[in-house]
Amino acid sequence: MRFAIDAMGGDHAPDEIVKGCLDALDILPADDRMIIVGDRPAVEDIMRERGVGADPRVVVQHSTQTIGMHETPVEAVRSKPDSSLVRIHALGSSKKTDDPVDFVLSAGNTGAHVSAATMTMRRLPGVHRPGIAVTIPLFHGPVVVCDVGANPEPRPIHLAQYAIMAETYAERVLGLKKPRIALLNIGAEEQKGTGLIKETRDLLKTIPSVNYVGYVEGRDLFDGVADVVVTDGFVGNTMLKLTEGLAKSLMKAIAHEVMVQDAELAIRLHEVMRGLFKKNDYHEYGGAPLLGVNGVSIICHGSSEARTIRNAIRNAREYVSAGVNEAIVRRLAELEGHPVMRKEEAA
Amino acid sequence: MRFAIDAMGGDHAPDEIVKGCLDALDILPADDRMIIVGDRPAVEDIMRERGVGADPRVVVQHSTQTIGMHETPVEAVRSKPDSSLVRIHALGSSKKTDDPVDFVLSAGNTGAHVSAATMTMRRLPGVHRPGIAVTIPLFHGPVVVCDVGANPEPRPIHLAQYAIMAETYAERVLGLKKPRIALLNIGAEEQKGTGLIKETRDLLKTIPSVNYVGYVEGRDLFDGVADVVVTDGFVGNTMLKLTEGLAKSLMKAIAHEVMVQDAELAIRLHEVMRGLFKKNDYHEYGGAPLLGVNGVSIICHGSSEARTIRNAIRNAREYVSAGVNEAIVRRLAELEGHPVMRKEEAA
Repeated sequence: MRFAIDAMGGDHAPDEIVKGCLDALDILPADDRMIIVGDRPAVEDIMRERGVGADPRVVVQHSTQTIGMHETPVEAVRSKPDSSLVRIHALGSSKKTDDPVDFVLSAGNTGAHVSAATMTMRRLPGVHRPGIAVTIPLFHGPVVVCDVGANPEPRPIHLAQYAIMAETYAERVLGLKKPRIALLNIGAEEQKGTGLIKETRDLLKTIPSVNYVGYVEGRDLFDGVADVVVTDGFVGNTMLKLTEGLAKSLMKAIAHEVMVQDAELAIRLHEVMRGLFKKNDYHEYGGAPLLGVNGVSIICHGSSEARTIRNAIRNAREYVSAGVNEAIVRRLAELEGHPVMRKEEAA
Repeated sequence: MRFAIDAMGGDHAPDEIVKGCLDALDILPADDRMIIVGDRPAVEDIMRERGVGADPRVVVQHSTQTIGMHETPVEAVRSKPDSSLVRIHALGSSKKTDDPVDFVLSAGNTGAHVSAATMTMRRLPGVHRPGIAVTIPLFHGPVVVCDVGANPEPRPIHLAQYAIMAETYAERVLGLKKPRIALLNIGAEEQKGTGLIKETRDLLKTIPSVNYVGYVEGRDLFDGVADVVVTDGFVGNTMLKLTEGLAKSLMKAIAHEVMVQDAELAIRLHEVMRGLFKKNDYHEYGGAPLLGVNGVSIICHGSSEARTIRNAIRNAREYVSAGVNEAIVRRLAELEGHPVMRKEEAA
């Protein structure tokens, strides 16, 4: 497999990103090619520090520009064609090269990532809008949520396509048989929710291959009632950040309370909490695919560490091997003529 | 003070509701009047069980209908004029009686509650749409979130008014000086978010009395960067339920992990967790006012227990004493001519 990594994106770039790449070497076969795109001197410094000499699997490509974490997405992508983020997407786009790499990966500015991917790779045949599918490690098992930020104001047709794409992903990469698809809503009753929700529900009910199980509320997520939760990018992104903030805050509060009341208990609890954290850690899942682009583009958390990157590389390889994109294209082609496949009018 | 309680609403009605009312007697002055509306035999049975004899502060009013937790709101309110939920709102409405009670309270069907309140009490002068303001007990202090479900598809003008109303509430009831008002968004940068968010931001910036501090993301909520968070009812409701589900699930996972690894530790931890729960318990805040209706209508959690109801009564009395509604009306009147006060065209 061949793939390209943006060495310059993320809160801990380039150090943690490059370290993660090098740590991933132990899971890469001899004929893999990992293209690390970024500031060559910086990347090579980190490689030297880690004692990695010439490895035929690692290729460094120099790029002269970097997109910052807070730059305006479309502007940044347009004005920085030689940024590592844009460059990896060109390497992964069949429009830009005859021999695209199998996947690209970045922990950089998510908005710019989505723009670069959409503008450079374009969309898979039949797809209206790409969506980010994140896997949340819950206690009873993982749940895929799509979209978590690519499309904050979707139409029903976008959400219905997210259901199809995320279902394919959950089936092929998480190994779930007939994943249960739910629509996030503010109540379980049919009359609840916005126009967007009700129209999406009506669409989902008419797609025989989708195992639609109904509405799900925020609190049910943790009860294991669905494998895939479809929602708009605004709500999905808010959920993701809220979950992260709350889990962290709750852990801190427990640690504080225990420390105040019983210092010996605190020490013993620390070990237990570490074990729990490891089981339910987004670093384990490593990256979220941008479903629907014509290529494989993996978005990593801005605060990714070396192990996040290593795990994301492992998972991206699985995404490619499982043929997720090809399966999505086939499933959409089978729906030719269905309302979910109709062309959109200009907004 | 005089107030009316819906004895029949909530997962644990009427038992826990009536018990909560009786438990509240120890905080009520001799000239308070508590009107408990519901099935008289059931209510009186519970009073007898608790050994409460004739108390001049307690009046039971019989109602023949009950609105279930899953009924369709507007339909239920229209078809059940003698339901306890509709009846308490008539008692609290200056349109329906010359001598309205000071507040009404229910733990019943939230959608029906909002409909009953809006249809019976109508709105305060100048208010476009009522919004539910919930106080979330976070570890660094409480945060008020408005709206959490009354208005899932608001316009910018509704959100801007929520900021004004929730600010007044936070100031007068939570005792915060110049509460910091934030707008929930999916990024901190100005260009982020939907049209709704940007238009609301522009409105908030032009209201001098509002201490607008900018966008806040889901994860920042737990860092104490804002006292009031304004959002649409869909996102707010989802956040609330997600928080509830996640906290419960996390606590369960920790308890399980500890039990497996170290049973003695589990017993000691149990005590600590109980203390923590007590500090951060929604039962302590008891109820959420529906801001903007012409009256005081308090919405309690569906799973309210006796202590939730008791605390909600205590807090509702503070809401009335603090003159929140009068202050809201004054603040809106001062904005006469401002875009936030313009009449809405029919949707």
